[in-house]
Amino acid sequence: MAAKSTSTARTTSPREINGIPARPRDREVLDAAATVFARYGYAAATVQHVAEELGILKGSLYYYIKTKEDLLFRLLLEVHEESDALLKKVAERDGLTPLAMLQEYVRAQTTFNLRNLVKIKVYYNDVDQLSEERRAEVLGRRRLHEAFVTRLIGSAQQTGEVSKKLDATLMANSVFAVIIWPYRWYRPRGRLKADDVVEACVDFVTYGLTKR
Amino acid sequence: MAAKSTSTARTTSPREINGIPARPRDREVLDAAATVFARYGYAAATVQHVAEELGILKGSLYYYIKTKEDLLFRLLLEVHEESDALLKKVAERDGLTPLAMLQEYVRAQTTFNLRNLVKIKVYYNDVDQLSEERRAEVLGRRRLHEAFVTRLIGSAQQTGEVSKKLDATLMANSVFAVIIWPYRWYRPRGRLKADDVVEACVDFVTYGLTKR
Repeated sequence: MAAKSTSTARTTSPREINGIPARPRDREVLDAAATVFARYGYAAATVQHVAEELGILKGSLYYYIKTKEDLLFRLLLEVHEESDALLKKVAERDGLTPLAMLQEYVRAQTTFNLRNLVKIKVYYNDVDQLSEERRAEVLGRRRLHEAFVTRLIGSAQQTGEVSKKLDATLMANSVFAVIIWPYRWYRPRGRLKADDVVEACVDFVTYGLTKR
Repeated sequence: MAAKSTSTARTTSPREINGIPARPRDREVLDAAATVFARYGYAAATVQHVAEELGILKGSLYYYIKTKEDLLFRLLLEVHEESDALLKKVAERDGLTPLAMLQEYVRAQTTFNLRNLVKIKVYYNDVDQLSEERRAEVLGRRRLHEAFVTRLIGSAQQTGEVSKKLDATLMANSVFAVIIWPYRWYRPRGRLKADDVVEACVDFVTYGLTKR
């Protein structure tokens, strides 16, 4: 992963977002919204800010969305489209022990987070700003990841890779702490390479779970 | 620690906050502000919300503060008054190896965070909403903690308790991930006792750093 690619919310253009076909400028609209929400915080950001970031009139933006909240919701769903896909890919791998599968998940999710720092910041800072129904949808999708990691830790306890003395739910939360926290401090142009941060996170989680 | 004490921002009344003598209702005002900021997010919260939480008129609140930002600033300084004091207490302990001192710090800081979930939520969610000068003051005080933990990891590498292959700055960030993250998921009335969460965090950090 080039350090450069982690400095922006821009990713490749999706064919669809949450099952809705993407319109040509959707990619740019969502990237601009991510940048603006990360800069001001969602509550203080306005649709006008997003339009200015895009260099278009506010009225034109309403072709893409009805409300500011639509932008936040679509952004967070997009984060899940991509991170749900990486979970699925890891879960489908053959021949891995539960601990090895967990390591692959930590590697894939931490890499994704470091490549999408702006969107991840918005995801964790602003999910509670969604209306109740939409918030429940996002948190429901997050729970799939929590359940996956908790189940892998439980399986690793069965195979003897992880001590049975540990509480799997509590350990899963510590694993997510290590995966997620880099968005708070990692600077793509700093001294540390993204790949090295990812491998350090994989090791920290592995040893945190296994030395007993 | 009783689980009950973690459910509220209320703590014992301080004699002073950041060197300024506390007025009689300061404690209640800051607790109400913490509750309101945690509920709505700082940007969406208003001084009117805080007055309502206190059951007083908005005008009366201006005896204590000039602006909404004063409340946020004093709250975050208060978090540092208390967590800087616990750092100092740990640093002054005699006869500990660097790793043992780090374990004591993780224990003390995680305990503090779990007892002050509401204020810690506001601290991490809203510090960027401060004006530049005030934000710099808070982040400067946070850096003392980062430097302390990074130095302890470096010393533990000298004594052989932690592998020299690890990057101390990167490891310090993983340690803070584990210390801080519980504010995102821990529920005081849930199945897990605060003391057990604290000890699990101490162990996770210890093993994360030491099995190589």
